[in-house]
Amino acid sequence: MKIKEVGEFGLIERIKTKLAFPHQDIIKGIGDDACAIETQKGRLLLSTIDALIEDVHFDLRFTSAYNLGKKSLAVNISDIAAMGGTPRFFLVSLGIPSKISVEFIDEFVTGLHETANSFQTYVVGGDTSFSPEKLNINITLLGEAFPSDVIYRDNAHVGDQVFVTGTLGDSALGLEILMNRKGLSRVEERFKDLVERHCNPTPRVAEGRLIAENRIASAMIDISDGIISDLGHICEQSKVGAKIWLDKLPTSEAFQKHSHEFTDRPMDLALGGGEDYELLFTVDRGNVDLLNRMKNRFKTKVTHIGEVVEPNEGIAVLDNCGKRYVVGKKGFDHFL
Amino acid sequence: MKIKEVGEFGLIERIKTKLAFPHQDIIKGIGDDACAIETQKGRLLLSTIDALIEDVHFDLRFTSAYNLGKKSLAVNISDIAAMGGTPRFFLVSLGIPSKISVEFIDEFVTGLHETANSFQTYVVGGDTSFSPEKLNINITLLGEAFPSDVIYRDNAHVGDQVFVTGTLGDSALGLEILMNRKGLSRVEERFKDLVERHCNPTPRVAEGRLIAENRIASAMIDISDGIISDLGHICEQSKVGAKIWLDKLPTSEAFQKHSHEFTDRPMDLALGGGEDYELLFTVDRGNVDLLNRMKNRFKTKVTHIGEVVEPNEGIAVLDNCGKRYVVGKKGFDHFL
Repeated sequence: MKIKEVGEFGLIERIKTKLAFPHQDIIKGIGDDACAIETQKGRLLLSTIDALIEDVHFDLRFTSAYNLGKKSLAVNISDIAAMGGTPRFFLVSLGIPSKISVEFIDEFVTGLHETANSFQTYVVGGDTSFSPEKLNINITLLGEAFPSDVIYRDNAHVGDQVFVTGTLGDSALGLEILMNRKGLSRVEERFKDLVERHCNPTPRVAEGRLIAENRIASAMIDISDGIISDLGHICEQSKVGAKIWLDKLPTSEAFQKHSHEFTDRPMDLALGGGEDYELLFTVDRGNVDLLNRMKNRFKTKVTHIGEVVEPNEGIAVLDNCGKRYVVGKKGFDHFL
Repeated sequence: MKIKEVGEFGLIERIKTKLAFPHQDIIKGIGDDACAIETQKGRLLLSTIDALIEDVHFDLRFTSAYNLGKKSLAVNISDIAAMGGTPRFFLVSLGIPSKISVEFIDEFVTGLHETANSFQTYVVGGDTSFSPEKLNINITLLGEAFPSDVIYRDNAHVGDQVFVTGTLGDSALGLEILMNRKGLSRVEERFKDLVERHCNPTPRVAEGRLIAENRIASAMIDISDGIISDLGHICEQSKVGAKIWLDKLPTSEAFQKHSHEFTDRPMDLALGGGEDYELLFTVDRGNVDLLNRMKNRFKTKVTHIGEVVEPNEGIAVLDNCGKRYVVGKKGFDHFL
C-alpha cells in the first residue's frame, strides 16, 4: 500500500497504535506539541541522538524493515548502556521516500516496538516527513542513571586493565558476507548468525548496569566505530595510551571458522570493523578481582584484552611476540 | 572548504566549539556516549522532535545557512512554547551531502547558536553523518514546565473563546514571494519583512509562559500547519467544534498591502498557509477579562478570533454576513 493512500495523519495513527503505550511517568504522550514526562529526583537524565541514513548506515538489500526498526533503537540503547544507564524514553523522526510502502513502515515499527519492549523504553515524540530520495531515521533516546553510577570516557588511568564484553568482528564479517553475496536472501544458512549480529545487534544494558552499580569501570564506551577508534576516544579524553594484545581479542567460533573465506586479515575486522555494540571498559587493578568474581553474573563473556599505558605510547596492538600489529582499517569517518 | 578536508571529527570539533557552552545542569556535555543532565524535582520534562529535510521543508535557494540554523531550532522551541513550557536543552543530528561546504555548516551553527542563546537553550547531543543527496536536519528539544502550568490540546470546552497571538499569513505570503521571485537575492526590499517572517520565525515563548503561569488558556497549539489544520487538532482532541470570524483574523500591514499582488484569495494564506508559529489558544469565558487586562504585558498583539462550539458544528470560518467561507488550502500533508 502506498503511503499517500493513508496520508501523513493516517501513518502517524498506525505508528502510534503500535508504539505508544501508557506509562506512569508519561503524563502526556504523542499527539500534542510535545510530550510531558515526570522525571525522578536525584537521577541524571542521559540523552543521545543517532541518525541512520539509507545507503550510508544501511542498505535496503541487506536488511529487513523489521531488523532496521530493531537496530535503529538498539544503537541508541547501546550508548546509554555505555554510560551505565537505563534507557527510558525515545523520540523517532522518519523521513520517508515514496518508494517505501505502508507495510514497510508497519514492519519497521514492529521491530522498533519489539526492541522498545525488551528494554522497557517508551516513545515520547515523533515526526514523519516525506524525504525525496533516501529513507532517514533519527532516534533520540533518553535514559536515567544515579549520578554516582554514570561512567564517562575520560577517567581511565595508567595501569587500568582493558576489558571487553562478548566477541569482536562478527558484525563486520556479517556485513562483508552480505556485500559479497549481494543481498540478504543469497546468504547461506551457515553464515546466518554472523549476518544476524550485523543486522540485529544486542545492546549490553544489563552488563553496563552491572559494571556501573558495582563501580567496576573507570571509563567505558560502546564499540560502534571499531575497537581501535573507540579505545582512541577513551585514551584521547582520559589523556592516556593503551596497548591491547592481538591474541586475547575474543572472537566467536563462527568468526574463527568463516572469516578466512572473506579476508586475508580477519583481525582487521575485529579491530576496525565496528558495529559490534559490545562494551569496552577500563578497570583499576584493585577492581580486577571483583570483576573476576562477578563474571558469572554477566550474560556475555568478559575478556581481559589489554592495559592503559602512558599517553606518549599511544595506542598499540601487540602480537604474541610483542611486535606491533598494524591495523588495515581504523574505524570509519563519514566524510573521508 | 570541502567537509572531507576537515573530516567528521574535525567538523564535530567546529560545531562543539561554537555550540557547546557549560551550564550547571549539564553534568556531561557532548563528547561521550550520551550527555548527562541534572533534572529538577517537581518539574515535567517536555520533549519534541522535528525534521527539516531539503526540498521538503526548505529550499536552499530560498534560505541562508544562518537562517536555516535559526529556524531549525525555532520551530522546535515553538512546540515547547505551545505547551506553556520553557525550552532548555536540544540535540541536533545533521545528514550532510557533499555539496555542502564547511562554511555553510559554520554559518548554520552560528544561526543555531544565536537562537539557542536568545532562548537560553543548551546543546546536549549531536550526530553528524554523510547524506547521499539532501541536507537533513533533525532537532530534539527538551523543555521544562511545572505540572500545573502545562497546556495541552485536549481541554477546550464549548463556549471557550479562541485567541491568537501576532499576525497570520505573513510566512505563507513570504514563501509565495520567494517562489515567485525564484530566490532570496531577487526579492525586492519592500517584501523583505514578509520573507523574513517565513525564513526566520519567532517562537512565542514569553507569550506561552504568560498564558500558562496565569492559567489563561484551556487549550493551546502553535500554528505550523495553518490555523484551520491546527485548530482542527485542538477540536479533534477536545471533541468540540469551532467557528472563527474571517474579518477578525489579524494580518500585518505588509500582508494587507502586498498579498493581492500574489494571490486572488489572500485569506487562504492566513487560514491555511502555515508556518506562522503564532500561538492559537482557547480561553474560558470567565478568563477573558483577565486576558484583556493582561494584554499590555504581551510583546505581540493578542486577537479574539472565534469561539468553541458543539462538535457537530465542525470547524467553520464565517464571513461578515455569517456565511461560511470555504478555504482553498487546508494545511499540509507531506504524503498527499
